[in-house]
Amino acid sequence: MATDVRLKDELSSITDQLVETYTECSRLNHLAHEPLPSRDAVADIVGDLFEVLYPGYGKRQNLHIGNIGYYVGSLVDALHDKLATQIARALRHELCDESPHADCVKMAEPKAVELLRRLADVRKTLEIDVEAAFRGDPAARSHHEIIFCYPGLEAITVYRVAHELHRLAVPFIPRMMTELAHAKTGIDIHPGATIGPGFFIDHGTGVVIGETCEIGRGVKLYQGVTLGALSFTKDDEGSLLHGSYKRHPTLRDGVVVYANATILGGQTVIGERTVVGSNVWLTESVPPDTTVVLEKPKLRLKGAKSTNDPLMYVI
Amino acid sequence: MATDVRLKDELSSITDQLVETYTECSRLNHLAHEPLPSRDAVADIVGDLFEVLYPGYGKRQNLHIGNIGYYVGSLVDALHDKLATQIARALRHELCDESPHADCVKMAEPKAVELLRRLADVRKTLEIDVEAAFRGDPAARSHHEIIFCYPGLEAITVYRVAHELHRLAVPFIPRMMTELAHAKTGIDIHPGATIGPGFFIDHGTGVVIGETCEIGRGVKLYQGVTLGALSFTKDDEGSLLHGSYKRHPTLRDGVVVYANATILGGQTVIGERTVVGSNVWLTESVPPDTTVVLEKPKLRLKGAKSTNDPLMYVI
Amino acid sequence: MATDVRLKDELSSITDQLVETYTECSRLNHLAHEPLPSRDAVADIVGDLFEVLYPGYGKRQNLHIGNIGYYVGSLVDALHDKLATQIARALRHELCDESPHADCVKMAEPKAVELLRRLADVRKTLEIDVEAAFRGDPAARSHHEIIFCYPGLEAITVYRVAHELHRLAVPFIPRMMTELAHAKTGIDIHPGATIGPGFFIDHGTGVVIGETCEIGRGVKLYQGVTLGALSFTKDDEGSLLHGSYKRHPTLRDGVVVYANATILGGQTVIGERTVVGSNVWLTESVPPDTTVVLEKPKLRLKGAKSTNDPLMYVI
Amino acid sequence: MATDVRLKDELSSITDQLVETYTECSRLNHLAHEPLPSRDAVADIVGDLFEVLYPGYGKRQNLHIGNIGYYVGSLVDALHDKLATQIARALRHELCDESPHADCVKMAEPKAVELLRRLADVRKTLEIDVEAAFRGDPAARSHHEIIFCYPGLEAITVYRVAHELHRLAVPFIPRMMTELAHAKTGIDIHPGATIGPGFFIDHGTGVVIGETCEIGRGVKLYQGVTLGALSFTKDDEGSLLHGSYKRHPTLRDGVVVYANATILGGQTVIGERTVVGSNVWLTESVPPDTTVVLEKPKLRLKGAKSTNDPLMYVI
Amino acid sequence: MATDVRLKDELSSITDQLVETYTECSRLNHLAHEPLPSRDAVADIVGDLFEVLYPGYGKRQNLHIGNIGYYVGSLVDALHDKLATQIARALRHELCDESPHADCVKMAEPKAVELLRRLADVRKTLEIDVEAAFRGDPAARSHHEIIFCYPGLEAITVYRVAHELHRLAVPFIPRMMTELAHAKTGIDIHPGATIGPGFFIDHGTGVVIGETCEIGRGVKLYQGVTLGALSFTKDDEGSLLHGSYKRHPTLRDGVVVYANATILGGQTVIGERTVVGSNVWLTESVPPDTTVVLEKPKLRLKGAKSTNDPLMYVI
Amino acid sequence: MATDVRLKDELSSITDQLVETYTECSRLNHLAHEPLPSRDAVADIVGDLFEVLYPGYGKRQNLHIGNIGYYVGSLVDALHDKLATQIARALRHELCDESPHADCVKMAEPKAVELLRRLADVRKTLEIDVEAAFRGDPAARSHHEIIFCYPGLEAITVYRVAHELHRLAVPFIPRMMTELAHAKTGIDIHPGATIGPGFFIDHGTGVVIGETCEIGRGVKLYQGVTLGALSFTKDDEGSLLHGSYKRHPTLRDGVVVYANATILGGQTVIGERTVVGSNVWLTESVPPDTTVVLEKPKLRLKGAKSTNDPLMYVI
Repeated sequence: MATDVRLKDELSSITDQLVETYTECSRLNHLAHEPLPSRDAVADIVGDLFEVLYPGYGKRQNLHIGNIGYYVGSLVDALHDKLATQIARALRHELCDESPHADCVKMAEPKAVELLRRLADVRKTLEIDVEAAFRGDPAARSHHEIIFCYPGLEAITVYRVAHELHRLAVPFIPRMMTELAHAKTGIDIHPGATIGPGFFIDHGTGVVIGETCEIGRGVKLYQGVTLGALSFTKDDEGSLLHGSYKRHPTLRDGVVVYANATILGGQTVIGERTVVGSNVWLTESVPPDTTVVLEKPKLRLKGAKSTNDPLMYVI
Repeated sequence: MATDVRLKDELSSITDQLVETYTECSRLNHLAHEPLPSRDAVADIVGDLFEVLYPGYGKRQNLHIGNIGYYVGSLVDALHDKLATQIARALRHELCDESPHADCVKMAEPKAVELLRRLADVRKTLEIDVEAAFRGDPAARSHHEIIFCYPGLEAITVYRVAHELHRLAVPFIPRMMTELAHAKTGIDIHPGATIGPGFFIDHGTGVVIGETCEIGRGVKLYQGVTLGALSFTKDDEGSLLHGSYKRHPTLRDGVVVYANATILGGQTVIGERTVVGSNVWLTESVPPDTTVVLEKPKLRLKGAKSTNDPLMYVI
Repeated sequence: MATDVRLKDELSSITDQLVETYTECSRLNHLAHEPLPSRDAVADIVGDLFEVLYPGYGKRQNLHIGNIGYYVGSLVDALHDKLATQIARALRHELCDESPHADCVKMAEPKAVELLRRLADVRKTLEIDVEAAFRGDPAARSHHEIIFCYPGLEAITVYRVAHELHRLAVPFIPRMMTELAHAKTGIDIHPGATIGPGFFIDHGTGVVIGETCEIGRGVKLYQGVTLGALSFTKDDEGSLLHGSYKRHPTLRDGVVVYANATILGGQTVIGERTVVGSNVWLTESVPPDTTVVLEKPKLRLKGAKSTNDPLMYVI
Repeated sequence: MATDVRLKDELSSITDQLVETYTECSRLNHLAHEPLPSRDAVADIVGDLFEVLYPGYGKRQNLHIGNIGYYVGSLVDALHDKLATQIARALRHELCDESPHADCVKMAEPKAVELLRRLADVRKTLEIDVEAAFRGDPAARSHHEIIFCYPGLEAITVYRVAHELHRLAVPFIPRMMTELAHAKTGIDIHPGATIGPGFFIDHGTGVVIGETCEIGRGVKLYQGVTLGALSFTKDDEGSLLHGSYKRHPTLRDGVVVYANATILGGQTVIGERTVVGSNVWLTESVPPDTTVVLEKPKLRLKGAKSTNDPLMYVI
Repeated sequence: MATDVRLKDELSSITDQLVETYTECSRLNHLAHEPLPSRDAVADIVGDLFEVLYPGYGKRQNLHIGNIGYYVGSLVDALHDKLATQIARALRHELCDESPHADCVKMAEPKAVELLRRLADVRKTLEIDVEAAFRGDPAARSHHEIIFCYPGLEAITVYRVAHELHRLAVPFIPRMMTELAHAKTGIDIHPGATIGPGFFIDHGTGVVIGETCEIGRGVKLYQGVTLGALSFTKDDEGSLLHGSYKRHPTLRDGVVVYANATILGGQTVIGERTVVGSNVWLTESVPPDTTVVLEKPKLRLKGAKSTNDPLMYVI
Repeated sequence: MATDVRLKDELSSITDQLVETYTECSRLNHLAHEPLPSRDAVADIVGDLFEVLYPGYGKRQNLHIGNIGYYVGSLVDALHDKLATQIARALRHELCDESPHADCVKMAEPKAVELLRRLADVRKTLEIDVEAAFRGDPAARSHHEIIFCYPGLEAITVYRVAHELHRLAVPFIPRMMTELAHAKTGIDIHPGATIGPGFFIDHGTGVVIGETCEIGRGVKLYQGVTLGALSFTKDDEGSLLHGSYKRHPTLRDGVVVYANATILGGQTVIGERTVVGSNVWLTESVPPDTTVVLEKPKLRLKGAKSTNDPLMYVI
């Protein structure tokens, strides 16, 4: 390729202009000797966690009860090191201004160990989730299919682990994890939400579950459901208040929310076993054992006799 | 990094607790000597299929009519082996309880060959799909752009192959394939659905097409459309009936469904050439050549004169 | 695996049938000696652009103001070559019929250099976008978290670069870039749209922004928002008119659109600072400083006293 | 690149001619449905064996006595499966003519397990080898340096494992392993040779140790040493006899052989503690406790006074 | 890691000094817009050639006579493109001074096609080489083992292909190929040498075969054999004459050369069926049917009675 | 594959036995929380150094004087971090017993910077080496070919860098680097040797250059040359003295040593411009301007008239 040399000569001044923006627009840079948590490392950790939580479904095959201890023990040990490293990076970054001399490595390790300690309980919860999915979807042929193919379970699994890290006050990494799941499944669960066992999301694309949601046991959601905020609190200067004050709804045990329904507001409580129909838009509480559906909307039906092309009559 | 040795010492007991859950919560494990189908292998098969179906658009460049036979022949041969291996694994897993001595390898190969045999017809259908996309989207500049950039076509392509495997009674793998496409495109088409040629999905994120949908020729869907179930059948003990009884709608030839519309129910039939408007929520049949739109919703418009901040008036 | 030889013998005729379809259904092939742009190469270019736009957040760590010039200069130089190669391929493909002898390499290089020249300005715009995200989301703890974890910013960043390529009349590649972002984030922004600084998309899955949208400064969208076309123009023979005539709405400065709202039509203009509520469906213009919400829908609430199973009452 | 189409047209006939040679020169093909052992798989096995034999020196870091059991147990389990698969392939290939129905999988597994069982003993021998290297090389600063950097130890390690497989009558794989080491170190040890503990090869490039060598304890070799055959036995028709009859020398305990010495013949025995000097060429036995050196060769020294260029006087 | 900032500040001036050397010592740079042949691409080409020459032994398994044509045809087609690209780069580089406007792409393609055309003959020669190896080594158990494990055959195969490229006057690439084989096998065959069929090198490490060697049919070499130059021709100014004048020996049909023998000089001819013994150093011709051995060297044997440590008596 | 479960059950006890050897044969383990230098990281560093020393010959193409500064500056910066990390690991390991609290990170960085500072001088020396290779080999067609294809230059380049690290008292890493080159080229140069500019090794397989060699300017070696030790010094207890006392020969300026010659001993000095012939074995000093050749060896030539098979007369 015969490159035009005069054009290439401009690349130097282009670089200089870009470098200037690294001082001007410094919020888009992270120019410092302390590395941030690594996206690839966090993805690798999530991969290892799936091997521990669902052994035999992932990369390592031919596992059996006689050898599983070795494999899991080896993974747990590796996870300890990887988690401790990334958590220390995240803490250092969070604390660099207020506590520049904090020993982040020392702070990170107990958090890593505690996460690993909680995995057995996470597995017990996930087993209830899988059972709920099987009971909730007539298309599911077996538990295997759910673990293998259901994006809802994948997103819930990542959330359950990320939520434990969130509870351990680990910065950045919980959200990095749930965004990995969001990118893959289209399901966006904030790691700060509280969700009981037996949770099932079918199809799932477009589901959003906000930071301060509280979800009981045995809840089922379909695709496109938003559990969001109704309005935001501002401080005296009119800026949004950042923090975890309650602004997303509460769903009690056994609630079912059908596709594309929207439930908003921190004071909104959906009572036990209540069913919210597809496309419903709710900003107020609903008592238990209730079914909320859209009043059958008035549809305008236009005959198309005068033409073969209904597209002409479009809305 | 100076690791705290006492903390690391706990990893053994953590491992032991996890191993205990492999007996307790055994549904989350696959501990057996017969390997499951491999996700990576299935993704590789899908990649090879795209090379066969759209030669010149993928990895191998410089193809021409003189050499294409070699390339495709080589791919077909490799696909035969890869498909036979993964199908055998899927069958063995499906049959392990009822027919532990079935010769799954022998059962798998004819299914693999039959899938390959059907690819020429799949290509003929896909050509109609591409033409429909070109005719249906004013933003499309060429057929090339559609094959190269349109996620709708990607999801439909994967569905068309997976559906053939579904018809061949191959377990697991069809759903693994459509979930690969779901993860990438946000379009969730169950491999069991029946879809005629000339099918076009624009944008596509959030589309869900259920297992027992029947879709005619020349149908067009936009993002967020759900073709779902209205209710589920239960057995005498109140458990969901698992299986393929008709519970999702039928769309006849030439139907168009705009963004975020929801059509539910196994008895719901949308007649030929009918148009369903954006956001419409339908649980009943509609005759042919009809246009269904939301009655113009009553909107509340609040003036914002008293303030510069409309956010104060939020819903 | 004991393969059935007779079955394998069929692979030859299967290949022959497939090769026949390469003549019959020739629109699905690209059989020519001029290679198309490469998806992997475009993804690699996007990766390099993120390193230039957000240094320190990606692969290369330990950057500081003393060394950043080298790193960025090296990337800019490599980007020049990669962009020029891929743009030349795209031009050659676009022009092969009408101008078979065009010197596409010579045409490509100035476009590549011009894109690089504009990156400093893109960065200045992105800084305003990040600030808007921080001000607009109470869950955001820091600017770092937004750059690291927010899919909305990722989609906007890719759009901003792709839009510059679109303005430079580069074919294919802008759409390939935005579809990469669409696949990862579920946010589908056409590279032809015009979007002012301070743009924020929260959660984002399902957002669609059409080719001829015009979006002012400081606009905020939530997940599932569609800014789409209302109807398409046809030519005298009834075929869709392909091209960039205005068919998507205009949103003026400071507009906010909540989750799953739909705004359609090239003549639809949403006035300054107006707020469009969740699930609203709009095909007409709205004046400035207005709040548009769904009239509180009539919900049917069915008591569930007669049974423990609300599912019986489903919609 | 504007390809000359007429030239490309020839590729078909070139392919046809090549395919003809697959029938004519069939010894260069392996056209069969039973796959051969895989070179990559064997290399992977060797990599895993080094992790087991020298834990902490390879890929996995941060090992300690508390977690080593998990890591090694997991490797042992994976090695079992990998070895059994490759050994079965090798056996099937070896036996395909004489015992086409042999159950090679069943024959392979005990061999795989037995190899693993012997690894603990192999490690004990290797520790003596490392100690011998440290004592034998003044340039060695530590045991660590030997394990990390000495190609001699690498070749001996691979030999020790390959020799056990050879003793277990596994075809192909032992030689594949030693050739991997040969390619990397330039040291060619036939897996059939018998070598006592405390063996040290310094530098090593060019060392050849034949199939029927017998080497005692504490032997040391330098680069370029050949322990070879003197002549070959032929059968009645004048063809070489293939097999393991003794045709390479015996070196008793404590023998040292300096660089580039050559010792040939199955009847040649080098006695205990004997030293063979650099470049010596030996085809007869030597008693114990002897030093064999080249008689100081008569060198011709030509003065170079008449010229500045000694090259003129070259040999 | 707390980096010392003052130290890092020096990196700029270090870079400046290095950049200065790119002008001063410009022979170590290749700073130009025309890329050199790529080492990785050449290695990839060699890999593909092995797949064509020894199908079934390499990466692709399960080949059979029914599908081999597809696989090989696909490889041949890909090889055409890869070879043409790399040969064009090599020619451009060679000719850039004398013929800056040569159409290297046009010159490269016929050379690429011609190489492919000769591969069938190369295979026929290689089959004779394999047969010679089997007849020549009692340790060889089968032809398979030779193709799979013998570095000699690997080096000869690469040489045979590289030699054809050398005959086609392709610069650089033939030597790059033989150096790949040299690095892996320790066998250094110049691509300019002429070597008849039935050539066998056993063990091979350290073998050197110079550019102008002529080697007949059925020749066998062992490790460490040098076929080298005796002296070099200089021009009038005392500089070495660069070029291909005959300066390495000729070995006629059936010659055998044992380990570490050295044969030097362009006038040296080793007659038919002559055997050159191990370590022999030859600079003169030898008649046919002769055996040349070292006169049994006088060895000094020192008794070791006075000490237990023979090392004291070392040479 | 039907695995024999009883056999697999043994894997646990096999693991236990292996773990026992990690206590018994503890010298083969590195069980500690401080990681060793990583082989992969060192190989990566060597790769980066080649990009800096020979820009345009390696991975990055299209370099020119306008952009080379960016590329090299970016590499230098990355090399700083990589070198500092690995050197710190090596120091920590070296010092862990005697100075457990040494701040190895602080000690490592100045060494890393100093190495980078010396690279400009290394390049100046390498340019003289390349020129010497071109003058010394009639087969070399250009400087490019030498940089691209000559393993001798590759080994010398690695040595020159490793030697600087050796001078900076960096443990382990220099030897790891030269062993990487040894594995690839068969040339084993100890990083402690001292070698003047204009050094050329032709072919090179089997060359060994010991730790305390001193080599002047303009020296040329051929394949198989050993510059070794004659005997080793022992301490009072009969153990080898480990360290760098002079035990390898000195070669003054302009010395040439032909293939497979062996020169031994710390007191042996080869005078200026002296030529040592092929296969010569030297343990004593030689004056300047001398040519040392083997006295023409007496060869025994046996006629082969009585037989057609010269092999019968073999040595």
